[in-house]
Amino acid sequence: MRLLFCGDIVGRPGRDALAEHLPRVRRELEPDFIVVNGENAASGFGITEKICNSLFEMGVDVITGGNHSWDQREMLTHINRETRLLRPQNFPAGTPGRGAAVFEATRGRKVLVLNVMARLFMDPLDDPFATVQRELERHRLGATVHAILLDFHGEATSEKMAMGHFVDGKVSLCVGTHTHVPTADAMILPGGTAYQTDAGMCGAYDSVIGMDKAVPLARFTRKLPTERLSVATGEGSLSAVLVETDDATGLAKRIEPVRLGGRLPEALPVLGAA
Amino acid sequence: MRLLFCGDIVGRPGRDALAEHLPRVRRELEPDFIVVNGENAASGFGITEKICNSLFEMGVDVITGGNHSWDQREMLTHINRETRLLRPQNFPAGTPGRGAAVFEATRGRKVLVLNVMARLFMDPLDDPFATVQRELERHRLGATVHAILLDFHGEATSEKMAMGHFVDGKVSLCVGTHTHVPTADAMILPGGTAYQTDAGMCGAYDSVIGMDKAVPLARFTRKLPTERLSVATGEGSLSAVLVETDDATGLAKRIEPVRLGGRLPEALPVLGAA
Amino acid sequence: MRLLFCGDIVGRPGRDALAEHLPRVRRELEPDFIVVNGENAASGFGITEKICNSLFEMGVDVITGGNHSWDQREMLTHINRETRLLRPQNFPAGTPGRGAAVFEATRGRKVLVLNVMARLFMDPLDDPFATVQRELERHRLGATVHAILLDFHGEATSEKMAMGHFVDGKVSLCVGTHTHVPTADAMILPGGTAYQTDAGMCGAYDSVIGMDKAVPLARFTRKLPTERLSVATGEGSLSAVLVETDDATGLAKRIEPVRLGGRLPEALPVLGAA
Amino acid sequence: MRLLFCGDIVGRPGRDALAEHLPRVRRELEPDFIVVNGENAASGFGITEKICNSLFEMGVDVITGGNHSWDQREMLTHINRETRLLRPQNFPAGTPGRGAAVFEATRGRKVLVLNVMARLFMDPLDDPFATVQRELERHRLGATVHAILLDFHGEATSEKMAMGHFVDGKVSLCVGTHTHVPTADAMILPGGTAYQTDAGMCGAYDSVIGMDKAVPLARFTRKLPTERLSVATGEGSLSAVLVETDDATGLAKRIEPVRLGGRLPEALPVLGAA
Ligand SMILES: [Fe+2]
Ligand SMILES: [Fe+2]
Ligand SMILES: [Fe+2]
Ligand SMILES: [Fe+2]
Ligand SMILES: [Fe+2]
Ligand SMILES: [Fe+2]
Ligand SMILES: [Fe+2]
Ligand SMILES: [Fe+2]
Repeated sequence: MRLLFCGDIVGRPGRDALAEHLPRVRRELEPDFIVVNGENAASGFGITEKICNSLFEMGVDVITGGNHSWDQREMLTHINRETRLLRPQNFPAGTPGRGAAVFEATRGRKVLVLNVMARLFMDPLDDPFATVQRELERHRLGATVHAILLDFHGEATSEKMAMGHFVDGKVSLCVGTHTHVPTADAMILPGGTAYQTDAGMCGAYDSVIGMDKAVPLARFTRKLPTERLSVATGEGSLSAVLVETDDATGLAKRIEPVRLGGRLPEALPVLGAA
Repeated sequence: MRLLFCGDIVGRPGRDALAEHLPRVRRELEPDFIVVNGENAASGFGITEKICNSLFEMGVDVITGGNHSWDQREMLTHINRETRLLRPQNFPAGTPGRGAAVFEATRGRKVLVLNVMARLFMDPLDDPFATVQRELERHRLGATVHAILLDFHGEATSEKMAMGHFVDGKVSLCVGTHTHVPTADAMILPGGTAYQTDAGMCGAYDSVIGMDKAVPLARFTRKLPTERLSVATGEGSLSAVLVETDDATGLAKRIEPVRLGGRLPEALPVLGAA
Repeated sequence: MRLLFCGDIVGRPGRDALAEHLPRVRRELEPDFIVVNGENAASGFGITEKICNSLFEMGVDVITGGNHSWDQREMLTHINRETRLLRPQNFPAGTPGRGAAVFEATRGRKVLVLNVMARLFMDPLDDPFATVQRELERHRLGATVHAILLDFHGEATSEKMAMGHFVDGKVSLCVGTHTHVPTADAMILPGGTAYQTDAGMCGAYDSVIGMDKAVPLARFTRKLPTERLSVATGEGSLSAVLVETDDATGLAKRIEPVRLGGRLPEALPVLGAA
Repeated sequence: MRLLFCGDIVGRPGRDALAEHLPRVRRELEPDFIVVNGENAASGFGITEKICNSLFEMGVDVITGGNHSWDQREMLTHINRETRLLRPQNFPAGTPGRGAAVFEATRGRKVLVLNVMARLFMDPLDDPFATVQRELERHRLGATVHAILLDFHGEATSEKMAMGHFVDGKVSLCVGTHTHVPTADAMILPGGTAYQTDAGMCGAYDSVIGMDKAVPLARFTRKLPTERLSVATGEGSLSAVLVETDDATGLAKRIEPVRLGGRLPEALPVLGAA
């Protein structure tokens, strides 16, 4: 099965990049299941019901979140109605929504999607490692589900690489989000799990992590209050990873970066080639 | 002129990767000037005089540092004797060594190398933006120096992208270090500066940022004291960027990632091709 | 019942201050139950079996911990043998020892002692608020236990005041530790819980949080590696709080600071006076 | 000379506490010079021109600031007109206003007031230690000025104690602000400098650092977006320190806490008594 995961969608340039490039990606790479991180889709801060629906219409199967999941208040209620929308699983008990669920891919195959947040340099949620372990005890890769995809939303490369090894052999793909810059370390770990430290953002890269650069620059240099952050206006890039799994084991056979449009160096795998 | 910058060398696998792949890189890419970040070259913690010399023998012109610059105490004195060894410039006044100096590349061309540390999620040094500005006022790209290379040692993608734009048009290359994972965002910024958020480490990638994974995993999951961190033992990768500059302006014409050996996806630019 | 809580004991000056002043405090204030935080008792880093025993011999009933609980490795096993030694309850599942237990005070009265660690500006453990809530659901103040004492080990005043209100009316005393400086805000909260943001350290105050000042000063001003921290050598102060509770309700009738010896301003409540 | 320093004024309860208790303090303690930290005077966030003027009318000589200095935008211009208003001196060069100035106390005596911000667990400004040293080189205590008062705005007790020792013998009073809780460690350091880790806030203590407790509690326990913070409505306390200096040397002869009103334990020194 082929899984496509697209990193944090940042505002209109990110949504436009998806609208422009996803059709080609679907045509050429024929993914069986598509997950996107949507925590910055609405002007950089959270996501709305309307944007969720437009992403589903593009062929997205599941939308994950992160520290910005609740920036648009309507999500606190919408997430209870929309089963295809996840938020980090390690928010405190009682938080609306969920961060782990099984979905159906093509030909009835089952995919468990996990969304968990890291803690280093971030707001302290419940232990992400214990959370992941608990969820993985409820499923068996290659037995109860055909694939498992973990979106580990975090800042520090050390915590993300540690999580990769923690789940190695137990999930199909462990991919990081949140830094808004794709890493060039797509690899299959020794146990068979596909791994990339960060998927990068779908957004405008002539920016500071997707936002217009004037305000962040002012903040870093002058330490005075500024205008609000606003999304950069340049052309966006799609930044994603494609993983091919073995349906019998759920493990990865191949992982490739996908980068199209905007200022990022292009990358597009060729089906069949390795 | 062609500049080669290799990211944080982590322990023996990093040094071995350089020893193995740098000859080929020099042969095929003919760099005019080579800089490496050496802050983790000695068992992951700092660098020694002996390792410095072995790197210079491999053809390295300048070694930069970071938060680990002083982990080996001998560096506090050796840095005063070894002009090709830099440490972040924004340490407090009175710190041994320096973080900005002009060196000679092939055919007598002059290269200013700057080494500065970021502050977000790091120990607070002097303002990196003010420090860079002060150094850049002493030189003029394409006039007093042929090229300027800035190693911005930092954690957060936002601060690193902001620095890229801050120096856009004023330096040849702004490249990040410290996260030990290469980013896939090599690009030329609008003003002509080559940029990559992180060069990645020269080290073993079946690891947690170059270190054996058992101890970091124990720390993340159990929060108890552990053995010391030790360098991972697998095969290392060389991770670098190659930049081609215009000697007349000092600005970048091309930036390409270089990744050889170990578990990283390979990348090697072809001279002349674009 | 009268509860005496002594803040972080820092090295020999802290232990000596206890040895010197605790007899007088016991004679004049007649506490029914004595708890001390011992996380820095052994040269500033952790505690040993031998020091635990010397504290029990002084009349201490229970020793609590914090982020330094495991600095002396022998504690990882000793804590399983010594029921009067606690560590923060919100360490991950599987951590040796425990952070909540019921003890016997004078005349067979029962005291629940809770030891929990905060997260703001600290290593992220499990949610301290959820942990406290869970423990409090197992007991009922004034019914199953006569008194409840919470040592909330944390840095930020905001998190500590929030915890005070979170447990107001449900515990007898919520007292902070970890900053090593006593606060002057002893008060009874509206619901009847005695509160002080930090108990202060039992240690030498002509110091930097109990340690010889030369090394911390060098670290703050020079940002270079230094010698190890060592405990300051001046005369130590005892820094504690005394709480008088109503045995019928378990709530507090009075809270007073106790400060004796060394450089701290002296404070010693008078029994019967209010 | 007698210096009175009042900690962070938080909103209306803080201003009301000053209005109610400062007349008595002035009458009974006859301070020669009064400094207050005003960074939270306007609804908890910054200060306005109008509030500045009302404080000056109460007899305040100088108002210091902190990380909230600019929360009310009008301060960015007002600080250039109002010489009695300071902001931390270690903001980047080019920041409006200043953080060090000499003022006149009773009988023409001169007082240097310094306002500097710490960095541990805070936004990284310029080096506070180097900043203080530079300012102190421009003045000589007991020679060019009769007294020097340093408001060190910071979170960590370690950095604040280190600053105390750093300036010991060179300033009359080093007092911390920012944590909004008074510490009980008023002391004269070996070199003759009066010191208290934090002056505490002038504000309502049945609160979370002066703000209504509902919102902070929700944030700590639920990790979801909340309403804005608003100032608590209970009765405020005045929290301050009084220092008596020797005009010949500028060093401290005595330091005493002053706490009046609200829920804080009362403290009021008696003139002449020691
Ligand atoms: Fe994001
Ligand atoms: Fe995020
Ligand atoms: Fe580093
Ligand atoms: Fe490094
Ligand atoms: Fe402690
Ligand atoms: Fe502690
Ligand atoms: Fe404040
Ligand atoms: Fe503040």
